[in-house]
Amino acid sequence: MMQQIAVIGGDARYLELIRQLQALPDTTISLVGFDKLEQGFTGLNQTDFADLDQGRMDAVILPITGTDRQGYVETVFSDQTVQLTDEWFEGLGDNTVIFTGISNDYLDAVSKALNVGLIPLLNRDDVAIYNSIPTAEGMIMMAIEHTDYTIHSSRIIVVGFGRVGNTVANKFAALGAKVSVCAKSIMDLARITELGHTAIPFDELHNFTNECDLLINTVPAKVVTKDAIQYLPPHGIIFDLASNPGGTDFDYARKRGIKAILSKSLPGIVAPKTAGKILADVIKQFLLKREENI
Amino acid sequence: MMQQIAVIGGDARYLELIRQLQALPDTTISLVGFDKLEQGFTGLNQTDFADLDQGRMDAVILPITGTDRQGYVETVFSDQTVQLTDEWFEGLGDNTVIFTGISNDYLDAVSKALNVGLIPLLNRDDVAIYNSIPTAEGMIMMAIEHTDYTIHSSRIIVVGFGRVGNTVANKFAALGAKVSVCAKSIMDLARITELGHTAIPFDELHNFTNECDLLINTVPAKVVTKDAIQYLPPHGIIFDLASNPGGTDFDYARKRGIKAILSKSLPGIVAPKTAGKILADVIKQFLLKREENI
Repeated sequence: MMQQIAVIGGDARYLELIRQLQALPDTTISLVGFDKLEQGFTGLNQTDFADLDQGRMDAVILPITGTDRQGYVETVFSDQTVQLTDEWFEGLGDNTVIFTGISNDYLDAVSKALNVGLIPLLNRDDVAIYNSIPTAEGMIMMAIEHTDYTIHSSRIIVVGFGRVGNTVANKFAALGAKVSVCAKSIMDLARITELGHTAIPFDELHNFTNECDLLINTVPAKVVTKDAIQYLPPHGIIFDLASNPGGTDFDYARKRGIKAILSKSLPGIVAPKTAGKILADVIKQFLLKREENI
Repeated sequence: MMQQIAVIGGDARYLELIRQLQALPDTTISLVGFDKLEQGFTGLNQTDFADLDQGRMDAVILPITGTDRQGYVETVFSDQTVQLTDEWFEGLGDNTVIFTGISNDYLDAVSKALNVGLIPLLNRDDVAIYNSIPTAEGMIMMAIEHTDYTIHSSRIIVVGFGRVGNTVANKFAALGAKVSVCAKSIMDLARITELGHTAIPFDELHNFTNECDLLINTVPAKVVTKDAIQYLPPHGIIFDLASNPGGTDFDYARKRGIKAILSKSLPGIVAPKTAGKILADVIKQFLLKREENI
Protein backbone atom coordinates (compact mmCIF):
# COMPACT_ATOMS: atom_id res chain seq x y z
CA MET A 1 0.00 0.00 0.00
CA MET A 2 1.39 3.39 -1.01
CA GLN A 3 1.96 5.76 1.88
CA GLN A 4 1.76 9.58 1.54
CA ILE A 5 3.75 11.86 3.83
CA ALA A 6 3.88 15.66 3.77
CA VAL A 7 6.62 17.63 5.50
CA ILE A 8 5.54 21.23 6.06
CA GLY A 9 8.39 23.50 7.14
CA GLY A 10 11.29 22.60 9.39
CA ASP A 11 14.91 23.53 10.02
CA ALA A 12 18.30 21.86 9.42
CA ARG A 13 17.22 18.83 11.46
CA TYR A 14 14.51 18.12 8.91
CA LEU A 15 16.99 17.63 6.08
CA GLU A 16 18.24 14.47 7.78
CA LEU A 17 14.70 13.54 8.81
CA ILE A 18 13.58 13.73 5.15
CA ARG A 19 16.64 11.75 4.00
CA GLN A 20 15.71 9.03 6.47
CA LEU A 21 12.04 8.96 5.43
CA GLN A 22 13.13 8.60 1.81
CA ALA A 23 14.41 5.17 2.71
CA LEU A 24 10.90 3.97 3.62
CA PRO A 25 9.43 1.54 1.08
CA ASP A 26 6.30 2.48 -0.92
CA THR A 27 6.25 6.04 0.33
CA THR A 28 5.62 9.32 -1.47
CA ILE A 29 6.94 12.42 0.26
CA SER A 30 5.71 15.94 -0.48
CA LEU A 31 7.78 18.86 0.74
CA VAL A 32 6.24 22.24 1.53
CA GLY A 33 8.57 25.06 2.53
CA PHE A 34 11.87 23.75 1.19
CA ASP A 35 11.95 25.65 -2.14
CA LYS A 36 14.90 27.88 -1.19
CA LEU A 37 17.04 24.93 -0.18
CA GLU A 38 20.33 24.90 -2.08
CA GLN A 39 20.96 21.18 -1.97
CA GLY A 40 17.69 19.77 -3.30
CA PHE A 41 16.25 16.32 -2.71
CA THR A 42 16.04 14.08 -5.74
CA GLY A 43 12.83 12.17 -6.27
CA LEU A 44 10.73 14.25 -3.91
CA ASN A 45 7.83 16.58 -4.75
CA GLN A 46 8.40 20.20 -3.88
CA THR A 47 4.81 21.40 -3.47
CA ASP A 48 3.24 24.80 -2.91
CA PHE A 49 1.20 24.77 0.25
CA ALA A 50 -1.95 25.67 -1.73
CA ASP A 51 -1.46 22.63 -3.95
CA LEU A 52 -1.02 20.12 -1.15
CA ASP A 53 -3.95 17.69 -0.98
CA GLN A 54 -4.01 17.13 2.76
CA GLY A 55 -6.98 14.77 2.45
CA ARG A 56 -4.74 12.16 0.85
CA MET A 57 -1.95 12.28 3.42
CA ASP A 58 -1.26 9.48 5.88
CA ALA A 59 1.04 11.68 7.89
CA VAL A 60 1.84 15.40 8.03
CA ILE A 61 5.06 16.44 9.74
CA LEU A 62 5.19 19.95 11.20
CA PRO A 63 8.37 21.68 12.41
CA ILE A 64 9.78 21.22 15.90
CA THR A 65 8.09 24.50 16.82
CA GLY A 66 4.70 23.29 15.51
CA THR A 67 2.61 26.36 14.72
CA ASP A 68 2.12 29.68 16.44
CA ARG A 69 -1.21 30.52 18.03
CA GLN A 70 -2.71 31.55 14.70
CA GLY A 71 -1.60 28.32 13.04
CA TYR A 72 1.32 29.87 11.14
CA VAL A 73 4.19 27.46 10.41
CA GLU A 74 7.84 28.54 10.44
CA THR A 75 9.46 27.76 7.08
CA VAL A 76 13.21 28.29 7.36
CA PHE A 77 13.95 27.24 3.78
CA SER A 78 11.14 29.16 2.06
CA ASP A 79 9.51 32.56 1.74
CA GLN A 80 6.05 30.97 1.58
CA THR A 81 3.54 31.89 4.21
CA VAL A 82 1.92 28.75 5.55
CA GLN A 83 -1.09 28.95 7.84
CA LEU A 84 -2.87 25.84 9.06
CA THR A 85 -6.42 27.12 9.58
CA ASP A 86 -9.38 25.27 11.04
CA GLU A 87 -10.56 24.71 7.46
CA TRP A 88 -7.24 23.16 6.54
CA PHE A 89 -7.49 20.72 9.45
CA GLU A 90 -11.08 19.91 8.42
CA GLY A 91 -9.77 18.86 5.04
CA LEU A 92 -7.48 16.16 6.50
CA GLY A 93 -8.17 12.50 5.85
CA ASP A 94 -9.79 10.36 8.52
CA ASN A 95 -6.56 8.59 9.37
CA THR A 96 -4.09 11.42 8.90
CA VAL A 97 -1.65 11.73 11.79
CA ILE A 98 0.01 15.07 12.54
CA PHE A 99 3.55 14.98 13.95
CA THR A 100 4.92 18.11 15.58
CA GLY A 101 7.88 18.82 17.83
CA ILE A 102 5.93 20.64 20.49
CA SER A 103 2.24 21.45 20.70
CA ASN A 104 0.41 24.55 21.92
CA ASP A 105 -3.13 25.59 22.84
CA TYR A 106 -4.07 26.12 19.21
CA LEU A 107 -2.90 22.72 17.98
CA ASP A 108 -4.34 20.96 21.02
CA ALA A 109 -7.72 22.62 20.56
CA VAL A 110 -8.08 22.14 16.82
CA SER A 111 -6.89 18.52 16.87
CA LYS A 112 -9.25 17.74 19.74
CA ALA A 113 -12.24 19.48 18.16
CA LEU A 114 -11.74 17.70 14.84
CA ASN A 115 -10.53 14.41 16.30
CA VAL A 116 -7.17 14.57 14.49
CA GLY A 117 -4.33 12.41 15.77
CA LEU A 118 -1.62 14.81 17.04
CA ILE A 119 1.75 13.50 18.20
CA PRO A 120 4.05 16.00 19.92
CA LEU A 121 7.35 14.19 19.42
CA LEU A 122 9.42 16.05 22.02
CA ASN A 123 6.99 14.99 24.76
CA ARG A 124 7.83 11.36 24.22
CA ASP A 125 10.21 9.86 26.76
CA ASP A 126 12.33 8.13 24.15
CA VAL A 127 12.78 11.27 22.05
CA ALA A 128 13.52 13.34 25.16
CA ILE A 129 16.18 10.89 26.33
CA TYR A 130 17.80 10.58 22.90
CA ASN A 131 17.72 14.38 22.57
CA SER A 132 19.34 14.76 25.98
CA ILE A 133 22.58 13.46 24.42
CA PRO A 134 23.13 16.36 21.99
CA THR A 135 21.79 18.69 24.69
CA ALA A 136 24.49 17.49 27.09
CA GLU A 137 27.16 17.78 24.39
CA GLY A 138 26.02 21.33 23.63
CA MET A 139 26.22 22.07 27.36
CA ILE A 140 29.77 20.69 27.41
CA MET A 141 30.69 22.92 24.47
CA MET A 142 29.27 25.99 26.22
CA ALA A 143 31.05 25.12 29.47
CA ILE A 144 34.39 24.87 27.66
CA GLU A 145 33.79 28.09 25.73
CA HIS A 146 32.65 30.18 28.71
CA THR A 147 35.31 29.22 31.27
CA ASP A 148 39.08 29.60 31.51
CA TYR A 149 39.45 26.37 33.47
CA THR A 150 38.83 22.73 32.57
CA ILE A 151 35.59 20.84 33.11
CA HIS A 152 37.88 18.27 34.77
CA SER A 153 37.99 19.08 38.51
CA SER A 154 35.38 21.84 38.25
CA ARG A 155 32.43 21.83 40.61
CA ILE A 156 29.09 21.42 38.86
CA ILE A 157 25.60 21.48 40.32
CA VAL A 158 22.85 20.12 38.08
CA VAL A 159 19.36 21.17 39.17
CA GLY A 160 16.80 18.51 38.28
CA PHE A 161 17.24 14.80 37.60
CA GLY A 162 14.81 14.33 34.74
CA ARG A 163 15.63 13.09 31.26
CA VAL A 164 18.09 15.95 30.62
CA GLY A 165 19.52 16.40 34.12
CA ASN A 166 20.43 12.73 34.39
CA THR A 167 22.37 12.76 31.11
CA VAL A 168 24.11 16.08 31.77
CA ALA A 169 25.26 14.90 35.21
CA ASN A 170 26.66 11.66 33.81
CA LYS A 171 28.54 13.35 30.93
CA PHE A 172 30.18 15.95 33.16
CA ALA A 173 31.16 13.28 35.68
CA ALA A 174 32.64 11.24 32.83
CA LEU A 175 34.88 14.21 32.01
CA GLY A 176 36.17 14.36 35.58
CA ALA A 177 34.00 17.13 37.02
CA LYS A 178 32.82 17.00 40.64
CA VAL A 179 29.09 16.70 40.06
CA SER A 180 26.26 17.33 42.49
CA VAL A 181 22.61 16.94 41.51
CA CYS A 182 19.69 18.66 43.18
CA ALA A 183 16.40 16.74 43.11
CA LYS A 184 13.16 16.34 45.00
CA SER A 185 12.23 12.66 45.25
CA ILE A 186 14.01 10.31 47.61
CA MET A 187 14.21 7.80 44.76
CA ASP A 188 16.10 10.32 42.61
CA LEU A 189 18.39 11.27 45.50
CA ALA A 190 19.21 7.58 45.99
CA ARG A 191 19.92 7.08 42.27
CA ILE A 192 22.09 10.21 42.17
CA THR A 193 24.12 8.82 45.07
CA GLU A 194 24.38 5.41 43.43
CA LEU A 195 25.81 7.05 40.30
CA GLY A 196 28.58 8.59 42.38
CA HIS A 197 27.31 12.16 42.31
CA THR A 198 26.57 14.24 45.41
CA ALA A 199 22.83 14.33 46.11
CA ILE A 200 21.35 17.68 47.16
CA PRO A 201 17.77 17.74 48.49
CA PHE A 202 15.68 20.30 46.62
CA ASP A 203 15.20 22.77 49.47
CA GLU A 204 18.89 22.77 50.40
CA LEU A 205 20.29 24.02 47.09
CA HIS A 206 21.30 27.38 48.60
CA ASN A 207 23.53 25.59 51.13
CA PHE A 208 25.70 24.18 48.33
CA THR A 209 26.04 27.00 45.79
CA ASN A 210 28.98 28.68 47.54
CA GLU A 211 31.19 25.85 46.27
CA CYS A 212 29.95 25.76 42.70
CA ASP A 213 31.62 26.82 39.47
CA LEU A 214 28.79 25.98 37.05
CA LEU A 215 25.13 25.78 38.02
CA ILE A 216 23.13 23.98 35.31
CA ASN A 217 19.35 24.17 35.57
CA THR A 218 17.11 21.69 33.76
CA VAL A 219 13.81 22.38 35.57
CA PRO A 220 11.20 24.54 33.78
CA ALA A 221 10.02 26.29 36.96
CA LYS A 222 11.44 29.05 39.16
CA VAL A 223 13.98 26.93 41.03
CA VAL A 224 17.23 28.89 40.71
CA THR A 225 16.09 31.69 42.96
CA LYS A 226 17.80 34.59 44.74
CA ASP A 227 18.47 32.19 47.64
CA ALA A 228 20.54 29.89 45.44
CA ILE A 229 22.23 32.62 43.39
CA GLN A 230 23.36 34.86 46.24
CA TYR A 231 25.99 32.42 47.51
CA LEU A 232 27.56 31.59 44.13
CA PRO A 233 31.23 32.67 43.85
CA PRO A 234 31.77 35.71 41.58
CA HIS A 235 33.18 33.54 38.77
CA GLY A 236 30.17 31.17 38.95
CA ILE A 237 28.08 30.80 35.81
CA ILE A 238 24.45 29.72 35.50
CA PHE A 239 23.38 27.79 32.40
CA ASP A 240 19.65 27.32 32.03
CA LEU A 241 18.64 24.45 29.75
CA ALA A 242 14.94 24.53 30.68
CA SER A 243 12.63 25.66 27.91
CA ASN A 244 12.02 29.39 27.59
CA PRO A 245 11.80 31.36 29.96
CA GLY A 246 14.00 28.95 31.96
CA GLY A 247 13.95 28.49 35.72
CA THR A 248 16.44 31.16 36.79
CA ASP A 249 15.93 34.55 38.42
CA PHE A 250 17.87 36.25 35.62
CA ASP A 251 17.16 39.73 37.01
CA TYR A 252 18.75 38.89 40.32
CA ALA A 253 21.71 37.17 38.65
CA ARG A 254 22.32 40.34 36.61
CA LYS A 255 22.12 42.50 39.71
CA ARG A 256 24.67 40.31 41.47
CA GLY A 257 26.93 40.32 38.38
CA ILE A 258 26.64 36.55 37.90
CA LYS A 259 26.73 35.45 34.26
CA ALA A 260 23.51 33.57 33.47
CA ILE A 261 22.82 32.05 30.06
CA LEU A 262 19.44 30.80 28.82
CA SER A 263 20.36 28.28 26.15
CA LYS A 264 18.34 27.75 23.01
CA SER A 265 17.43 24.25 21.88
CA LEU A 266 20.88 22.68 21.67
CA PRO A 267 20.25 19.49 19.61
CA GLY A 268 19.31 21.53 16.53
CA ILE A 269 22.39 23.71 16.97
CA VAL A 270 25.16 21.24 17.78
CA ALA A 271 23.90 18.08 16.08
CA PRO A 272 21.05 18.72 13.60
CA LYS A 273 21.81 15.48 11.79
CA THR A 274 21.57 13.34 14.92
CA ALA A 275 18.50 15.30 16.07
CA GLY A 276 16.82 14.69 12.69
CA LYS A 277 17.61 11.00 12.85
CA ILE A 278 16.12 10.74 16.35
CA LEU A 279 12.81 12.17 15.09
CA ALA A 280 12.87 10.07 11.92
CA ASP A 281 13.42 6.85 13.89
CA VAL A 282 10.35 7.50 16.05
CA ILE A 283 8.17 8.50 13.08
CA LYS A 284 9.28 5.45 11.11
CA GLN A 285 8.51 3.14 14.02
CA PHE A 286 5.08 4.73 14.40
CA LEU A 287 4.20 4.43 10.71
CA LEU A 288 5.43 0.84 10.59
CA LYS A 289 3.35 -0.16 13.59
CA ARG A 290 0.27 1.51 12.18
CA GLU A 291 0.67 -0.28 8.89
CA GLU A 292 0.89 -3.59 10.74
CA ASN A 293 -2.32 -2.78 12.59
CA ILE A 294 -4.31 -1.82 9.49
CA MET B 1 65.70 33.11 52.99
CA MET B 2 64.24 35.56 50.50
CA GLN B 3 63.67 34.14 47.07
CA GLN B 4 63.75 36.25 43.88
CA ILE B 5 61.75 35.25 40.81
CA ALA B 6 61.50 37.11 37.50
CA VAL B 7 58.74 36.42 34.99
CA ILE B 8 59.72 37.66 31.53
CA GLY B 9 56.81 37.72 29.09
CA GLY B 10 54.01 35.22 28.82
CA ASP B 11 50.37 34.98 27.77
CA ALA B 12 47.03 34.60 29.56
CA ARG B 13 48.23 31.41 31.25
CA TYR B 14 50.90 33.39 33.05
CA LEU B 15 48.37 35.57 34.85
CA GLU B 16 47.24 32.54 36.84
CA LEU B 17 50.85 31.32 37.13
CA ILE B 18 51.88 34.66 38.67
CA ARG B 19 48.85 34.63 41.00
CA GLN B 20 49.91 31.20 42.22
CA LEU B 21 53.56 32.21 42.72
CA GLN B 22 52.40 35.21 44.76
CA ALA B 23 51.24 32.75 47.39
CA LEU B 24 54.80 31.50 47.96
CA PRO B 25 56.30 32.63 51.28
CA ASP B 26 59.36 34.91 51.34
CA THR B 27 59.35 35.49 47.62
CA THR B 28 59.84 38.64 45.59
CA ILE B 29 58.47 38.55 42.06
CA SER B 30 59.58 40.91 39.30
CA LEU B 31 57.44 41.16 36.17
CA VAL B 32 58.91 42.12 32.80
CA GLY B 33 56.52 42.50 29.88
CA PHE B 34 53.23 42.95 31.71
CA ASP B 35 53.05 46.76 31.60
CA LYS B 36 50.04 46.89 29.24
CA LEU B 37 48.01 44.53 31.37
CA GLU B 38 44.67 46.11 32.35
CA GLN B 39 44.19 44.27 35.61
CA GLY B 40 47.46 44.89 37.43
CA PHE B 41 48.99 42.75 40.13
CA THR B 42 49.16 44.36 43.55
CA GLY B 43 52.40 44.03 45.45
CA LEU B 44 54.54 43.00 42.47
CA ASN B 45 57.35 44.91 40.79
CA GLN B 46 56.70 45.86 37.18
CA THR B 47 60.26 46.18 35.89
CA ASP B 48 61.75 47.35 32.61
CA PHE B 49 63.85 44.63 31.09
CA ALA B 50 66.92 46.88 31.18
CA ASP B 51 66.48 47.38 34.93
CA LEU B 52 66.17 43.70 35.81
CA ASP B 53 69.16 42.51 37.84
CA GLN B 54 69.30 38.96 36.56
CA GLY B 55 72.34 38.18 38.72
CA ARG B 56 70.17 38.28 41.83
CA MET B 57 67.43 35.98 40.55
CA ASP B 58 66.86 32.48 41.86
CA ALA B 59 64.54 31.69 39.00
CA VAL B 60 63.65 33.29 35.68
CA ILE B 61 60.43 32.17 34.00
CA LEU B 62 60.21 32.54 30.23
CA PRO B 63 57.00 32.21 28.15
CA ILE B 64 55.68 28.86 26.93
CA THR B 65 57.30 29.66 23.59
CA GLY B 66 60.71 30.34 25.21
CA THR B 67 62.69 32.56 22.87
CA ASP B 68 63.13 32.64 19.11
CA ARG B 69 66.47 31.75 17.57
CA GLN B 70 67.86 35.22 18.22
CA GLY B 71 66.82 35.10 21.88
CA TYR B 72 63.82 37.43 21.45
CA VAL B 73 61.01 36.83 23.94
CA GLU B 74 57.33 37.19 23.04
CA THR B 75 55.66 39.72 25.35
CA VAL B 76 51.89 39.61 24.79
CA PHE B 77 51.10 42.24 27.44
CA SER B 78 53.81 44.74 26.50
CA ASP B 79 55.34 46.69 23.63
CA GLN B 80 58.85 46.21 25.07
CA THR B 81 61.39 44.39 22.97
CA VAL B 82 63.12 41.80 25.08
CA GLN B 83 66.19 39.98 23.78
CA LEU B 84 68.07 37.49 25.90
CA THR B 85 71.58 37.76 24.49
CA ASP B 86 74.63 35.70 25.37
CA GLU B 87 75.75 38.62 27.53
CA TRP B 88 72.46 38.58 29.41
CA PHE B 89 72.85 34.88 30.16
CA GLU B 90 76.44 35.51 31.33
CA GLY B 91 75.05 37.95 33.87
CA LEU B 92 72.90 35.32 35.56
CA GLY B 93 73.67 34.14 39.09
CA ASP B 94 75.40 30.83 39.69
CA ASN B 95 72.24 29.16 40.92
CA THR B 96 69.68 30.83 38.68
CA VAL B 97 67.30 28.36 37.06
CA ILE B 98 65.56 29.23 33.81
CA PHE B 99 62.07 27.83 33.27
CA THR B 100 60.64 27.83 29.75
CA GLY B 101 57.69 26.10 28.11
CA ILE B 102 59.67 24.67 25.21
CA SER B 103 63.33 24.99 24.34
CA ASN B 104 65.09 25.44 21.00
CA ASP B 105 68.62 25.26 19.61
CA TYR B 106 69.47 28.73 20.84
CA LEU B 107 68.37 28.17 24.44
CA ASP B 108 69.92 24.70 24.52
CA ALA B 109 73.24 26.01 23.23
CA VAL B 110 73.56 29.07 25.42
CA SER B 111 72.46 27.28 28.58
CA LYS B 112 74.89 24.45 27.91
CA ALA B 113 77.79 26.77 27.06
CA LEU B 114 77.28 28.85 30.21
CA ASN B 115 76.20 25.95 32.44
CA VAL B 116 72.81 27.51 33.20
CA GLY B 117 70.04 25.27 34.53
CA LEU B 118 67.29 25.20 31.87
CA ILE B 119 63.98 23.44 32.51
CA PRO B 120 61.64 23.04 29.53
CA LEU B 121 58.39 22.51 31.42
CA LEU B 122 56.33 21.04 28.58
CA ASN B 123 58.85 18.20 28.17
CA ARG B 124 58.09 16.94 31.65
CA ASP B 125 55.79 13.91 31.80
CA ASP B 126 53.68 15.31 34.60
CA VAL B 127 53.11 18.63 32.82
CA ALA B 128 52.36 16.85 29.54
CA ILE B 129 49.79 14.58 31.20
CA TYR B 130 48.12 17.40 33.12
CA ASN B 131 48.07 19.49 29.93
CA SER B 132 46.51 16.61 28.02
CA ILE B 133 43.28 17.26 29.96
CA PRO B 134 42.60 20.75 28.56
CA THR B 135 43.91 19.51 25.21
CA ALA B 136 41.30 16.74 25.18
CA GLU B 137 38.57 19.14 26.27
CA GLY B 138 39.56 21.54 23.47
CA MET B 139 39.44 18.60 21.06
CA ILE B 140 35.92 17.77 22.32
CA MET B 141 34.88 21.38 21.76
CA MET B 142 36.23 21.33 18.20
CA ALA B 143 34.53 18.01 17.46
CA ILE B 144 31.17 19.37 18.61
CA GLU B 145 31.63 22.60 16.66
CA HIS B 146 32.75 21.01 13.39
CA THR B 147 30.18 18.22 13.08
CA ASP B 148 26.41 18.07 12.71
CA TYR B 149 26.17 14.80 14.65
CA THR B 150 26.88 13.89 18.27
CA ILE B 151 30.20 12.62 19.62
CA HIS B 152 28.04 9.88 21.14
CA SER B 153 27.97 6.94 18.67
CA SER B 154 30.48 8.58 16.32
CA ARG B 155 33.48 6.60 15.14
CA ILE B 156 36.80 8.06 16.28
CA ILE B 157 40.30 6.91 15.46
CA VAL B 158 43.06 8.34 17.66
CA VAL B 159 46.52 7.99 16.15
CA GLY B 160 49.15 7.61 18.86
CA PHE B 161 48.81 6.45 22.46
CA GLY B 162 51.21 8.83 24.19
CA ARG B 163 50.38 11.28 26.91
CA VAL B 164 47.82 13.12 24.75
CA GLY B 165 46.42 10.20 22.74
CA ASN B 166 45.64 8.20 25.86
CA THR B 167 43.65 11.04 27.43
CA VAL B 168 41.82 11.96 24.21
CA ALA B 169 40.77 8.33 23.65
CA ASN B 170 39.45 8.00 27.20
CA LYS B 171 37.47 11.25 27.11
CA PHE B 172 35.79 10.47 23.79
CA ALA B 173 34.94 6.96 24.98
CA ALA B 174 33.48 8.46 28.16
CA LEU B 175 31.12 10.50 25.97
CA GLY B 176 29.89 7.38 24.19
CA ALA B 177 32.00 7.48 21.02
CA LYS B 178 33.25 4.29 19.40
CA VAL B 179 36.98 4.77 19.86
CA SER B 180 39.84 3.03 18.09
CA VAL B 181 43.47 3.82 18.84
CA CYS B 182 46.34 3.25 16.48
CA ALA B 183 49.69 2.52 18.14
CA LYS B 184 53.00 0.77 17.55
CA SER B 185 54.07 -1.14 20.64
CA ILE B 186 52.40 -4.40 21.63
CA MET B 187 52.23 -3.08 25.18
CA ASP B 188 50.22 -0.06 24.03
CA LEU B 189 47.96 -2.24 21.88
CA ALA B 190 47.27 -4.42 24.90
CA ARG B 191 46.50 -1.42 27.12
CA ILE B 192 44.23 0.07 24.44
CA THR B 193 42.29 -3.19 24.34
CA GLU B 194 42.12 -3.36 28.13
CA LEU B 195 40.57 0.13 28.19
CA GLY B 196 37.79 -1.09 25.90
CA HIS B 197 38.95 0.72 22.76
CA THR B 198 39.68 -1.02 19.46
CA ALA B 199 43.43 -1.47 18.97
CA ILE B 200 44.81 -0.75 15.49
CA PRO B 201 48.43 -1.80 14.74
CA PHE B 202 50.37 1.12 13.33
CA ASP B 203 50.83 -0.19 9.79
CA GLU B 204 47.17 -1.16 9.43
CA LEU B 205 45.66 2.31 9.91
CA HIS B 206 44.58 2.52 6.25
CA ASN B 207 42.46 -0.63 6.69
CA PHE B 208 40.29 1.11 9.29
CA THR B 209 39.79 4.66 8.01
CA ASN B 210 36.81 3.82 5.77
CA GLU B 211 34.69 3.54 8.90
CA CYS B 212 35.86 6.68 10.64
CA ASP B 213 34.10 9.98 11.27
CA LEU B 214 36.91 11.79 13.09
CA LEU B 215 40.59 10.98 12.74
CA ILE B 216 42.60 12.58 15.55
CA ASN B 217 46.35 12.58 15.20
CA THR B 218 48.66 13.07 18.18
CA VAL B 219 51.96 11.90 16.66
CA PRO B 220 54.48 14.58 15.54
CA ALA B 221 55.66 12.64 12.47
CA LYS B 222 54.19 11.97 9.03
CA VAL B 223 51.75 9.24 10.06
CA VAL B 224 48.43 10.33 8.56
CA THR B 225 49.51 9.71 5.00
CA LYS B 226 47.77 9.42 1.65
CA ASP B 227 47.22 5.73 2.40
CA ALA B 228 45.19 6.51 5.51
CA ILE B 229 43.37 9.54 4.10
CA GLN B 230 42.21 8.05 0.81
CA TYR B 231 39.70 5.68 2.42
CA LEU B 232 38.09 8.23 4.77
CA PRO B 233 34.40 8.88 4.02
CA PRO B 234 33.69 12.30 2.43
CA HIS B 235 32.31 13.70 5.70
CA GLY B 236 35.39 12.53 7.64
CA ILE B 237 37.44 15.20 9.41
CA ILE B 238 41.08 15.09 10.44
CA PHE B 239 42.18 16.93 13.58
CA ASP B 240 45.90 17.17 14.09
CA LEU B 241 46.97 17.87 17.68
CA ALA B 242 50.68 17.18 17.10
CA SER B 243 52.88 20.24 17.36
CA ASN B 244 53.37 22.30 14.20
CA PRO B 245 53.56 21.15 11.34
CA GLY B 246 51.52 18.16 12.56
CA GLY B 247 51.63 14.65 11.18
CA THR B 248 49.07 14.87 8.39
CA ASP B 249 49.50 15.06 4.62
CA PHE B 250 47.45 18.25 4.48
CA ASP B 251 48.08 18.68 0.74
CA TYR B 252 46.58 15.32 -0.07
CA ALA B 253 43.64 15.89 2.31
CA ARG B 254 42.89 19.16 0.50
CA LYS B 255 43.08 17.43 -2.87
CA ARG B 256 40.64 14.78 -1.73
CA GLY B 257 38.32 17.43 -0.24
CA ILE B 258 38.73 16.11 3.31
CA LYS B 259 38.59 18.79 6.00
CA ALA B 260 41.87 18.72 7.97
CA ILE B 261 42.53 21.02 10.92
CA LEU B 262 45.92 21.63 12.55
CA SER B 263 45.05 22.78 16.03
CA LYS B 264 47.03 25.38 17.95
CA SER B 265 48.03 24.77 21.55
CA LEU B 266 44.62 24.08 23.10
CA PRO B 267 45.33 24.41 26.86
CA GLY B 268 46.15 28.11 26.50
CA ILE B 269 42.99 28.66 24.45
CA VAL B 270 40.32 26.70 26.28
CA ALA B 271 41.65 26.74 29.84
CA PRO B 272 44.43 29.32 30.40
CA LYS B 273 43.73 29.38 34.13
CA THR B 274 44.10 25.62 34.52
CA ALA B 275 47.14 25.64 32.21
CA GLY B 276 48.78 28.37 34.32
CA LYS B 277 48.09 26.47 37.51
CA ILE B 278 49.66 23.32 36.04
CA LEU B 279 52.90 25.21 35.32
CA ALA B 280 52.84 26.98 38.68
CA ASP B 281 52.43 23.73 40.59
CA VAL B 282 55.50 22.25 38.94
CA ILE B 283 57.60 25.38 39.42
CA LYS B 284 56.54 25.64 43.06
CA GLN B 285 57.45 22.00 43.70
CA PHE B 286 60.84 22.54 42.08
CA LEU B 287 61.64 25.66 44.09
CA LEU B 288 60.49 24.04 47.32
CA LYS B 289 62.68 20.98 46.75
CA ARG B 290 65.68 23.11 45.86
CA GLU B 291 65.26 25.15 49.01
CA GLU B 292 65.16 21.96 51.05
CA ASN B 293 68.38 20.80 49.41
CA ILE B 294 70.27 24.06 50.00
